[in-house]
Amino acid sequence: MKLSEMNKDNLSDFLDEAKTQYEAFKSQGLKLDMSRGKPSPAQLDLSNDMLTCINGDCIKSESGLDCRNYGVLDGIDEAKRLLAPMLGVNINEVIVGGNSSLQLMYDTIMKAMVLGTKDSDKPWGKYDKIKWLCPAPGYDRHFAICESLGIEMITIPMNSEGPDMDMVEKLVSEDETVKGIWCVPMYANPTGITYSDEVVRRFAALSPAAKDFRIFWDNAYCVHHLCDDHDKLLNILDECKKTGKQDMVYIFASTSKISFSGSGLAAIGASEANINALKKQLAFQTIGFDKINQLRHARFFKDFDGIKAQMRRHMEIIKPKFDMVIKMLNSELKPLGIGSWHEPKGGYFISFDGPANTAKRIVSLCKDGGVVLTGAGASYPYGKDPEDKNIRIAPTYPSVDELEKAMELFCIAAKIAAAEKLLEG
Amino acid sequence: MKLSEMNKDNLSDFLDEAKTQYEAFKSQGLKLDMSRGKPSPAQLDLSNDMLTCINGDCIKSESGLDCRNYGVLDGIDEAKRLLAPMLGVNINEVIVGGNSSLQLMYDTIMKAMVLGTKDSDKPWGKYDKIKWLCPAPGYDRHFAICESLGIEMITIPMNSEGPDMDMVEKLVSEDETVKGIWCVPMYANPTGITYSDEVVRRFAALSPAAKDFRIFWDNAYCVHHLCDDHDKLLNILDECKKTGKQDMVYIFASTSKISFSGSGLAAIGASEANINALKKQLAFQTIGFDKINQLRHARFFKDFDGIKAQMRRHMEIIKPKFDMVIKMLNSELKPLGIGSWHEPKGGYFISFDGPANTAKRIVSLCKDGGVVLTGAGASYPYGKDPEDKNIRIAPTYPSVDELEKAMELFCIAAKIAAAEKLLEG
Repeated sequence: MKLSEMNKDNLSDFLDEAKTQYEAFKSQGLKLDMSRGKPSPAQLDLSNDMLTCINGDCIKSESGLDCRNYGVLDGIDEAKRLLAPMLGVNINEVIVGGNSSLQLMYDTIMKAMVLGTKDSDKPWGKYDKIKWLCPAPGYDRHFAICESLGIEMITIPMNSEGPDMDMVEKLVSEDETVKGIWCVPMYANPTGITYSDEVVRRFAALSPAAKDFRIFWDNAYCVHHLCDDHDKLLNILDECKKTGKQDMVYIFASTSKISFSGSGLAAIGASEANINALKKQLAFQTIGFDKINQLRHARFFKDFDGIKAQMRRHMEIIKPKFDMVIKMLNSELKPLGIGSWHEPKGGYFISFDGPANTAKRIVSLCKDGGVVLTGAGASYPYGKDPEDKNIRIAPTYPSVDELEKAMELFCIAAKIAAAEKLLEG
Repeated sequence: MKLSEMNKDNLSDFLDEAKTQYEAFKSQGLKLDMSRGKPSPAQLDLSNDMLTCINGDCIKSESGLDCRNYGVLDGIDEAKRLLAPMLGVNINEVIVGGNSSLQLMYDTIMKAMVLGTKDSDKPWGKYDKIKWLCPAPGYDRHFAICESLGIEMITIPMNSEGPDMDMVEKLVSEDETVKGIWCVPMYANPTGITYSDEVVRRFAALSPAAKDFRIFWDNAYCVHHLCDDHDKLLNILDECKKTGKQDMVYIFASTSKISFSGSGLAAIGASEANINALKKQLAFQTIGFDKINQLRHARFFKDFDGIKAQMRRHMEIIKPKFDMVIKMLNSELKPLGIGSWHEPKGGYFISFDGPANTAKRIVSLCKDGGVVLTGAGASYPYGKDPEDKNIRIAPTYPSVDELEKAMELFCIAAKIAAAEKLLEG
């Protein structure tokens, strides 16, 4: 029976029972942090051989460069060749950076703030206010960058094909101070959907009022599939080349969830003109990134096929975890008509939409029960979910058994919050 | 006989002979790049064991953290403990960053430009113009940062004790738009001198008009001694604590010339209040730096004594190179009265001051002869040496034999340039 079909007495009984279950659960003293999308130790073990694959006898890059010494701003050739196909760009359209794609995004915006892009009339920081489009729910750290820099965020609703493109097209074409948009186009954080071909083509066909408008295409989950019949994403740079707007997009990715989180390689892909302009600015920031780590990655993975093979091994580890979350939601909440969710074919998250005004309550109940989730609202600009319904579930780190426990708690919490809300109403 | 004491005929003969030597040298077809201060392969070999000292079985930090995963913004404890004494700060006064102290400096200025420091009334980028004091000759990449960001550079003469402090005190106290000063306080790049105690104390006692004025104390060569009777530098943060101005200084250092150039650890040291303010800003830029590399360094060096022992091994490799440069200058140029130089007790450079208006000519002659030196003028703001006399010699990378060859060429070139100048005059 759906919760919404219960009468008040039934609902009260239901709530009492859920609360009894909750107290019983609490007494187990579970302690689990599911707040971030972190790989599990078993996933990290997959790359352990990378740790020792470079020694003093094999420290030269294929060009003969000693990777222990200074030099090479944009990455050694073999690292570029490894990552360029992952980003969907050519060798001359990529910079292999440090250990963090987030940092590459942040730094790219900072340089645009202080110096401008190659197409800017003036640095973004010289405007009274610039604006940014934020498809939401989205990635909290993207929004945090904007908030920290005083960039006004405009929420764009996400649908099953990507951001609301009518709204994107309108805002971008009307307002010269709209300078960018965040996109996680594949297995979006947190909704798990992949942008449709039409959405990608509409992005490539945008006619921004600002000639220095940039799409920040954070393809963080480009190879992070959960099944063989996985999603496919159109190549944004190729599409932009067709419309002649290849300078409108910066593509980001990293191996943080392929090799090691925090000790991987990050990269930016863009048109050659953009790459050259970015390199000119980058030359003042650093002499070069960690080439030994670039060499480790190139030697360990060998080529893009090596990365894909590694991702299959990741899949085998994390697929049962996603399955467990979906199984628990399907068995515990679906029959009661509580909430909705998407079964993603890749990525790191399952996005749960509860009844309106329950997300904070569910997260709080889970926390008191021993499971820390990403804060409710975090997936919206300024941390404010207008309907207080979205919760990001990150299944990768815990074991399947822990996850079953955690989801048991989650479902009890959702039942309590949903019943309370109905009884209030 | 000094060149200046020769008559015109003697000078002409001298020049002809030098030119003959030059042509003979050129025919040897030497190819050597001495443009940057790079460690030699033998120096890099000293740290080869670091490359394989971490594997999957010993990947946890002392706090039990899996260094392969996300987390820890400011560095793992053992890395902080390794580097804090090198910077002369406490554990709670340090952030261990990425692979590049230059990048830490650049990023610190960028954040001050866009966000301001903790003491700023407004971000530096909101001024029409800000100014920076640049002791010169100095480090070209420091000056390049200022130039790239449109920060007006004011040249401060360097003397044997450090920058001209009368001038520093005057400018800093008079002008609210003077926001910073570059300092390489120990074995300064390129002059090789170490700031005297009095200079350090006068820095600590500065009374800037700008309450957000910052000393950028780039202690790049803090442990890079060339003899046992080495220079000693007063601890700037300690001195600033005595004057109550501990928020006025940021200290930078790295292991780029201790372990691997480009794959080392960089760190910033500052008052706890500054560190906390910097961490707040940093949290938007990155989730964290490469902790595996931090662990490598902590395990390999064990502690600060381990770094000091490593630096003795570096000294043994590079001291004969510095000696060769000095020997050649002393034997070839000193009797002729051409130029002047300082015999440094540490660091990476020997700074040569030729007769006025000869530096460009000497560098050009060396280049055509097969030896690339740092561009003449590079050690001055905007690349303009007002007297065109300073040349930075970087002896560490070539072998002693190569260096002897290179200095032979250098001295011939200096003879030619000096004689030409005298004949002109």
